[in-house]
Amino acid sequence: MIRAVTLQRYLPFLQWLPGYNRGQAAADLVAAGIVTFMLIPQSLAYALLAGLPAQVGLYASILPLVLYALFGSSRTLSVGPVAVISLMTAAALGPLAEAGVADPVTGAALLAVMSGLILFLMGVLRLGFLANFLSHPVVSGFISASALVIIVSQLRHIFGISASGHNLLDSGISLLISLSDVHLPTLFVGGGTLLFLIFARQWLNPVLESLGCPGPLRSVAVRLAPLFALLVTTLLGWSLALGDQGVALVGEIPAGLPSLAWPAGDPGLWRQLSGSALLIAIVGFVESVSIGQTLGAKRRQRIDPNQELLGLGAANIGAGLSGGMPVTGGFSRSVVNYDAGARTPAAGAFAAAGIALATLYFTPAIAWLPKATLAATIIVAVAPLADLASIRDTWLYSRADFGAMLATIVLTLFYTVEAGIVTGVLLSLGLFLYRTSRPHSAIVGRVPGTEHFRNVERHQVELCERTVFLRIDESLYFANARFLEETVLELLSRNPDLTDLVLVCTSVNHIDASALDSLEAINGRLQEAGVRLHLSDVKGPVMDRLRDTDLLKQLSGQVFLSAYQAWVRLSGNESA
Amino acid sequence: MIRAVTLQRYLPFLQWLPGYNRGQAAADLVAAGIVTFMLIPQSLAYALLAGLPAQVGLYASILPLVLYALFGSSRTLSVGPVAVISLMTAAALGPLAEAGVADPVTGAALLAVMSGLILFLMGVLRLGFLANFLSHPVVSGFISASALVIIVSQLRHIFGISASGHNLLDSGISLLISLSDVHLPTLFVGGGTLLFLIFARQWLNPVLESLGCPGPLRSVAVRLAPLFALLVTTLLGWSLALGDQGVALVGEIPAGLPSLAWPAGDPGLWRQLSGSALLIAIVGFVESVSIGQTLGAKRRQRIDPNQELLGLGAANIGAGLSGGMPVTGGFSRSVVNYDAGARTPAAGAFAAAGIALATLYFTPAIAWLPKATLAATIIVAVAPLADLASIRDTWLYSRADFGAMLATIVLTLFYTVEAGIVTGVLLSLGLFLYRTSRPHSAIVGRVPGTEHFRNVERHQVELCERTVFLRIDESLYFANARFLEETVLELLSRNPDLTDLVLVCTSVNHIDASALDSLEAINGRLQEAGVRLHLSDVKGPVMDRLRDTDLLKQLSGQVFLSAYQAWVRLSGNESA
Repeated sequence: MIRAVTLQRYLPFLQWLPGYNRGQAAADLVAAGIVTFMLIPQSLAYALLAGLPAQVGLYASILPLVLYALFGSSRTLSVGPVAVISLMTAAALGPLAEAGVADPVTGAALLAVMSGLILFLMGVLRLGFLANFLSHPVVSGFISASALVIIVSQLRHIFGISASGHNLLDSGISLLISLSDVHLPTLFVGGGTLLFLIFARQWLNPVLESLGCPGPLRSVAVRLAPLFALLVTTLLGWSLALGDQGVALVGEIPAGLPSLAWPAGDPGLWRQLSGSALLIAIVGFVESVSIGQTLGAKRRQRIDPNQELLGLGAANIGAGLSGGMPVTGGFSRSVVNYDAGARTPAAGAFAAAGIALATLYFTPAIAWLPKATLAATIIVAVAPLADLASIRDTWLYSRADFGAMLATIVLTLFYTVEAGIVTGVLLSLGLFLYRTSRPHSAIVGRVPGTEHFRNVERHQVELCERTVFLRIDESLYFANARFLEETVLELLSRNPDLTDLVLVCTSVNHIDASALDSLEAINGRLQEAGVRLHLSDVKGPVMDRLRDTDLLKQLSGQVFLSAYQAWVRLSGNESA
Repeated sequence: MIRAVTLQRYLPFLQWLPGYNRGQAAADLVAAGIVTFMLIPQSLAYALLAGLPAQVGLYASILPLVLYALFGSSRTLSVGPVAVISLMTAAALGPLAEAGVADPVTGAALLAVMSGLILFLMGVLRLGFLANFLSHPVVSGFISASALVIIVSQLRHIFGISASGHNLLDSGISLLISLSDVHLPTLFVGGGTLLFLIFARQWLNPVLESLGCPGPLRSVAVRLAPLFALLVTTLLGWSLALGDQGVALVGEIPAGLPSLAWPAGDPGLWRQLSGSALLIAIVGFVESVSIGQTLGAKRRQRIDPNQELLGLGAANIGAGLSGGMPVTGGFSRSVVNYDAGARTPAAGAFAAAGIALATLYFTPAIAWLPKATLAATIIVAVAPLADLASIRDTWLYSRADFGAMLATIVLTLFYTVEAGIVTGVLLSLGLFLYRTSRPHSAIVGRVPGTEHFRNVERHQVELCERTVFLRIDESLYFANARFLEETVLELLSRNPDLTDLVLVCTSVNHIDASALDSLEAINGRLQEAGVRLHLSDVKGPVMDRLRDTDLLKQLSGQVFLSAYQAWVRLSGNESA
């Protein structure tokens, strides 16, 4: 298959921009408006979650959206700060800030630039396939555990107490110890917002429906509930001077748009952040691609993972250069963008303009916003991410997958998010390798009246005297080469009057050099014992390689097209 | 299969010692005598190779042999210092000694104890299977490259110059620079010994044969050539006072047997050596097991890898406690032991007694032995390890395997042995994962007149209208789950009037949770497009798992026993 490498390929906006028309623009503008109003509270909240000043979240929602619109391959994905990546940012920056090594704002910008460079480089090298090595259970367990860590970490803002800690145990204990210091006015604001947002999410839709409100309007009302909570509590913060009563407010933030600058940071800091940047890049990429694919599937639009790397890379570099934080495609924001009818990536650019306007004109008001409001926004946004059904399904289906998932969850909850995801990935790869190193094998016989061969222990089958048909259920490679030898030799010792052994290779997709050595050794050992070795059902690509090897030259038996052919020849009886 | 866990299992000597008779003892004693004479020069030489005083090699050939006789599972394996492990010891200790952190003797003993503990622990945990993850090409490339590094490193002793360096580049350049300083008396001894040993190995046998010497005697004569060279050059060293003429001699070494002591070494040193100890343990284990299996096969004796771990672990701990160095099963010594007719592991214990006697009574004489003699012994011993045929065969058979082999060789030659072996292992695992992540797949059709289905592009087959039989040649797991979705969807877009898709699962040995998600997604997407999804040839273990899943409940099509059954049902024509 020849790949058409054109400018269009690397700059996807060239595909849609030339034909951009008024209808599309109108749809995109409407979607952008809704997304903007949803993004303002979310951006502020995720900056808080990452331990950063509120404006950093806004900055990360301007330039990155424009760059993603130019380089990204998804037409509906909406990038910006998201919960899990913000938590990972907090985990990466926390120790550095505590040790006084770097201020978090510089660290966040650097982390974004580094993640961006990693993503962009991976895109250039076409390494998008690496994301496939994160298994669903590991990713799902990681996100569920992260959601729990995030919720517990935000409760301190709801209670108005100064707890700390980066994992469930630290945060939880710290929270319980300080619980007697609960600040009632803060709890009133935070708890009230939380209840309102839960109500909005769970019951606003049915309530509005019973009042005869039309569907699309109801949906918009639900989406804008966080913005409403933000406006009301900001108004309260200002009118009741909540700050004077000890309620933590966002406080004054610099007016105006961010200026572009390469983030300061010495080589030592680059080195210290490199591991975190890599993990943020990969987790962000996986999250973004799966969202993009889910939404793309609905409109039959394909996502190109390598192009996605370029888009997310550019977005993150942009985030870092404009004083932001690491970003990626967010699920809820992308769904809103999609539902609101966004037609092209221009919707993202329009939303960026919306956020820029808000940053220019509304920042003075944001000073009065209670942090508890943002914490409530975060809690309600991440609660659905804890996916208990997926944990249960994994447990029921595969203990091995569940093991990797559990390790991810436990480490994420009780140690660090980075240890959680890394351990999960390594464990799932290790389990796969372990499984393939001790393959299932079966002696097969003929299903009567057919040419089909199945396991003698599971099916009523016919056997052939002095001939054994052995099916090894795995590609033969170095990790199971010795296992193969042992299996065959054990079979030999159990069947002293064997004359023919047929290796049924239906499941053998590859034979590597180590396994070839083992097969040659097996052939020799069987020959010494007076047993002929035959192969059947060898696949085309495997046969291509074997053709010129010593194995085929020295094979004591034959290579049969199918097990049935071997059966006919070796039993000497076609109708057997 | 129930495993009989008895004391005999963990102490294999209980199996042979009770029935030990005079005939066996006589055979063992003869073998031990020959092995002892061969081991003396080898032990001294490998100590030199490891950068250690000569007696360390002798110490490592006493207690370890006794312990292996008690715990090891091979009846003919002979343990002691070997070339590759000695090179790895030199590589581990070199930097420490240069930095003045630890003296090499302490370091070597500590390395032996640590490797021994690692091996013993792996044995207790039954982790013998881990050795399977070193592929043949990587091990073979590593040993070939090590042999070359060893040869170049020993040339300095032959030329009598003080060159340094731990890899081919360092040693080679250092050697070339100092070549003008060549010390002629040393070159005379070293070069003479080298030529004599090469003559003995290549031509002594035919020459003796033409003189009418009987076969067994010829073989012993060839084996004892190094001992002869050692005796002659020691005599020369003493009679000509070669030391006064600048020829490097072994020099005085402590008389008497080593005393048992836990090697000194602070926690910092333990930590620094831990990586090297792990690599030495694993490489030594792999080498030992493959030798044991090769020899065991000839006498139909099985090697138990986990018991081998205990045997080698005990041997190395013993080596460390008695002032020795890391040991493992050596190929040439084991072959000698086997050829000389050793019947039980008692031969090893007898050889230990022989070495102990030599240590007690012959050490004063060893002082006059030129180091050049030992270097020549090493060079002749390791030269056959460079296995160019295996490199060529690997290149011809598999470019991927060759890639891993080449990386191992290049890094071992030009960087460090540890980097070489680690990179080789990781690369071969990575290549396997990469390969399984993008499986081969084929649309298959019926081979006319049979029930057999093969690739449409390779065979003349019959197809079924509006039905496609797709065979994916790999277990379905997280790394190829997305690939599977893409393959099916591309197939769908290329066949717009498809009504049925049969996934032929002959090669699918496992479906993990991620792949199950993908299959459910595929089923849904096909259903939307009006295409039924069927499965055929699902293996027993895979079907057991699938039975209670949503996939089977929601499957739009059926599960067929075989592709032919699906063909009959879907084409509606048994005789088609």
